[in-house]
Amino acid sequence: MLTDMEISRQANVRPIGWIADDFGLGKHLWREAGHAMAKISLEAAREPRRGKLVIVTAVTPTPHGEGKTVTTIGLTQGLHLLGHKACACIRQPSLGPVFGVKGGAAGGGYAQVVPMEVMNLHMTGDIHAVTSAHNLAAAAIDARLFHETRLGPDAFSAKTGLQALNIDPERILWRRVLDHNDRSLRQIELGLGDNNGPVHGGGFDITAASELMAILALCENIADMRARIGRVILAMSRDGNPISADDLGVAGAMTAIMRDAIEPTLMQTLSGAPCLVHAGPFANIAHGNSSIIADRVALAHHDYVVTEGGFGSDMGFEKFCNIKSRASGIAPSAAVLVVTLRALKANSGVDGDDSERLEAGFANLHWHMQNVMGYGLPLVVAINRFPDDSMAELAWLKERCLAEGAFGCEISDAFSHGAEGARALAIAVARACDAPSNFEYLYDDQMDFGARLMTLAERYGAAGVSLSEDARRDLAMITQLGMDKLPLCIAKTPLSISHDPALKGAPSGFELPVVGLRLSAGAGFITVLTGKVMTMPGLGLLPGYLNIDINDKGDIIGLG
Amino acid sequence: MLTDMEISRQANVRPIGWIADDFGLGKHLWREAGHAMAKISLEAAREPRRGKLVIVTAVTPTPHGEGKTVTTIGLTQGLHLLGHKACACIRQPSLGPVFGVKGGAAGGGYAQVVPMEVMNLHMTGDIHAVTSAHNLAAAAIDARLFHETRLGPDAFSAKTGLQALNIDPERILWRRVLDHNDRSLRQIELGLGDNNGPVHGGGFDITAASELMAILALCENIADMRARIGRVILAMSRDGNPISADDLGVAGAMTAIMRDAIEPTLMQTLSGAPCLVHAGPFANIAHGNSSIIADRVALAHHDYVVTEGGFGSDMGFEKFCNIKSRASGIAPSAAVLVVTLRALKANSGVDGDDSERLEAGFANLHWHMQNVMGYGLPLVVAINRFPDDSMAELAWLKERCLAEGAFGCEISDAFSHGAEGARALAIAVARACDAPSNFEYLYDDQMDFGARLMTLAERYGAAGVSLSEDARRDLAMITQLGMDKLPLCIAKTPLSISHDPALKGAPSGFELPVVGLRLSAGAGFITVLTGKVMTMPGLGLLPGYLNIDINDKGDIIGLG
Repeated sequence: MLTDMEISRQANVRPIGWIADDFGLGKHLWREAGHAMAKISLEAAREPRRGKLVIVTAVTPTPHGEGKTVTTIGLTQGLHLLGHKACACIRQPSLGPVFGVKGGAAGGGYAQVVPMEVMNLHMTGDIHAVTSAHNLAAAAIDARLFHETRLGPDAFSAKTGLQALNIDPERILWRRVLDHNDRSLRQIELGLGDNNGPVHGGGFDITAASELMAILALCENIADMRARIGRVILAMSRDGNPISADDLGVAGAMTAIMRDAIEPTLMQTLSGAPCLVHAGPFANIAHGNSSIIADRVALAHHDYVVTEGGFGSDMGFEKFCNIKSRASGIAPSAAVLVVTLRALKANSGVDGDDSERLEAGFANLHWHMQNVMGYGLPLVVAINRFPDDSMAELAWLKERCLAEGAFGCEISDAFSHGAEGARALAIAVARACDAPSNFEYLYDDQMDFGARLMTLAERYGAAGVSLSEDARRDLAMITQLGMDKLPLCIAKTPLSISHDPALKGAPSGFELPVVGLRLSAGAGFITVLTGKVMTMPGLGLLPGYLNIDINDKGDIIGLG
Repeated sequence: MLTDMEISRQANVRPIGWIADDFGLGKHLWREAGHAMAKISLEAAREPRRGKLVIVTAVTPTPHGEGKTVTTIGLTQGLHLLGHKACACIRQPSLGPVFGVKGGAAGGGYAQVVPMEVMNLHMTGDIHAVTSAHNLAAAAIDARLFHETRLGPDAFSAKTGLQALNIDPERILWRRVLDHNDRSLRQIELGLGDNNGPVHGGGFDITAASELMAILALCENIADMRARIGRVILAMSRDGNPISADDLGVAGAMTAIMRDAIEPTLMQTLSGAPCLVHAGPFANIAHGNSSIIADRVALAHHDYVVTEGGFGSDMGFEKFCNIKSRASGIAPSAAVLVVTLRALKANSGVDGDDSERLEAGFANLHWHMQNVMGYGLPLVVAINRFPDDSMAELAWLKERCLAEGAFGCEISDAFSHGAEGARALAIAVARACDAPSNFEYLYDDQMDFGARLMTLAERYGAAGVSLSEDARRDLAMITQLGMDKLPLCIAKTPLSISHDPALKGAPSGFELPVVGLRLSAGAGFITVLTGKVMTMPGLGLLPGYLNIDINDKGDIIGLG
């Protein structure tokens, strides 16, 4: 079979204006960004919702990848093939993984967004805008600290007419960001040298971890984005008060930098179905879903909108339900759970023959099925097929899923066969969308913090929760600010349903340790840290960039 | 008078397709990037040169600004008004100054590129692409250092099949970059914490100082860009050998990131004349001119192309002649030297009455006139007029300039009156372009390093040159690599013709101290450091970002 890149390059990429026409967008609602992309005006979200929203999730991920984006794009292509108006809404790929590990995030095989190198390489620059806005705030804090320290608060105020903020250099909460995997920037000391200080610690996260990325994904319009950015907490003062971007006077400029990024980017799948690509928060440290604005734009113009949450259903899907849907008020109509035979075996946690490993691994799938159905959604399990999968095992798995209460279970061959390979899945999903559903959040936002946390922990299989000293102190501050009723964003490993990557399958009886809380006052959630969570990846021994180059024609090669 | 922003907002911004049509570009040669910008294919540079190139420079800059970009845009508008096919080629503004000091870099008044907020706020993301490509290389060096240190060179090679590079952590030459003014990142320590090391020093420059930005401005096509990026020296090995981006295997990926950035962006002036905006190297630490590719595209389709070099004629103009023109082989036909009465007085270095200050300040203008004419170019002095300028002083100045050998001298009112205000200047410049010229470089690139440096130093007024111990060591290494014949890029203060900002007017008899040399093997020049040159600005007491916000309509306000 051809590589993803070869398939993309051979694709018949239609002028983006044709895709926008099919979408139903008047010419005043979009502007071309090269031949293969268009930025969509927020006015396109004003029309009422017309379509059904399908959320795609997966079992606990394995190093091989389960093909969630392949299934999301393939399903959209399949619905399109059936004659439905269908649109995919997915996140913009971070450059970190693109250059860190071989391959992009535009789907794969015959279920791709094209041109894949356009999607994988900064598109219209939205992520760069988030990086830039984020780092402007960081520079502004340090500059204010520098000038106030240099002059003293009174002279500072006299010279500038601004109130001194009295920033505590040991409690600057706003790190910097870059959209690369750069281990050496995780922890740095800055302000060294003459007249650059005060010296203090800091570091860089990957841009997908920025609160501004979460804001981009959760805001409704530019005024809402402006207000949320104004609320982000950058640092604490020496007397213990939070200092926001509005306090620093930098929120307007940050919003100006992100003004174009708020518009979703229209691209196309290999079959010519539309795809809106917008925002890219990670699902382990942020809420892991593409934007509310893109969903609204797509739902106003399509019968079916297919979106996906990052990692397994314990991660992006949970946050889709309890954070994103709560913020937007948009209930999904059905869910798709992606699984592969390989993932079942890898998630089994046992060595044995294939049938033993499948049986043990099914516990993980079973948990994810129960989790999804627990939100009141009709569930279709999509078995993403690999060429050497055993027919007997596929048949066994399908039967098990149906026996366990799935509304449907279909084998998806979208990777190898595109839209046609997802036809059965698309039929099942369309039926599921017409089935009765009773979507509800896992917890009520009026419940107190402890009760909400315990509800989530129990769903993961935990017998209890422990809060560290730091976490208690964080909670006290958040409560004092009156923000303890915000939804919870659990930061944990994606490699287990629990907080511990070593616990495979569907662990239970463990204690969920909460080591700290982070208030995202702008994004509107409280991040619950369960152990050390990596916010800046590193490059491996043989990073993906080694394969990437341009050829004689100036085309990019080696990208997946 | 209205603010720059108000004028821009009231402008009749034409669809960029109309501008591209006027330009003479077939539809296959450009792609829309929003309604006000288009990316131009490099194929548009293939047709032979048709037009005359005019280089705009200025006297030694003062804090008020002399209006060089206003004059560049105004002159283009004036030539356009006269019925000539005229195009401006300027640099993309860095976000550092945009948020650091009030105001943008799109010209001003009625001589602007519009929409000014589009030009001033990351445009199509070229600078972000440079930042990203630069920082990928930095991450790659540190990751390689990390893995080789962790495993040891033999185990590293055995595991990866790659030769160990043996990077010296104390001699990593490639710093990181951000497009903001961020003083606290000038000097940092990185690799702190567990398993992120080895710990070593580093820091960030502003992106305009990146060698990749110079490469973008100096390369001819994507293959040339790829080759130049491959040659950049990232670090030294422990045994003293340079390690290039090709050695690290990261040059292809860096080029892929910059693939779209190589295409100039077409915008328009207030009068509808075209403007190509491309690349943005600073003139104090890099070569300070927009791209060769943009000049070629413009010259293939216009009678007159107006470009500018950064800072005074000792800086960007000198580098235009000795670095950019040498690389491109494109000789300019005429030069424009911008001066204001205010700048003359400020550059006088004396306290006294206006006539004494003008007379003393004229020494500075005189030096710049001689410098420009010394390159064999017909010179038109453009007096950028301010509303309260004295008519008598203007008349005196014009007479002096003509007496000192200027081909022409005209008052420019483009700020207040747009194209009409630059009519006389445009007529004079068109005449100058038809006058005989005899452009020649200041030095021959076959002269040895010392002789070339002395030639430059003498032009600045120096009586001699001193090389520090470091500079001698740097020179030995550069000579050993066979690169000592590359053109020189003097890094010095823009605030004096000398290396010392305190020396006003036209200083002479000083010794030019060279404290170090930096080989830019990819850009193709040797940077000569004359004292401590700032490569990362800082934010001031009342930074420009305080004024910037969005209004109820989502429009950006407060930007200049």
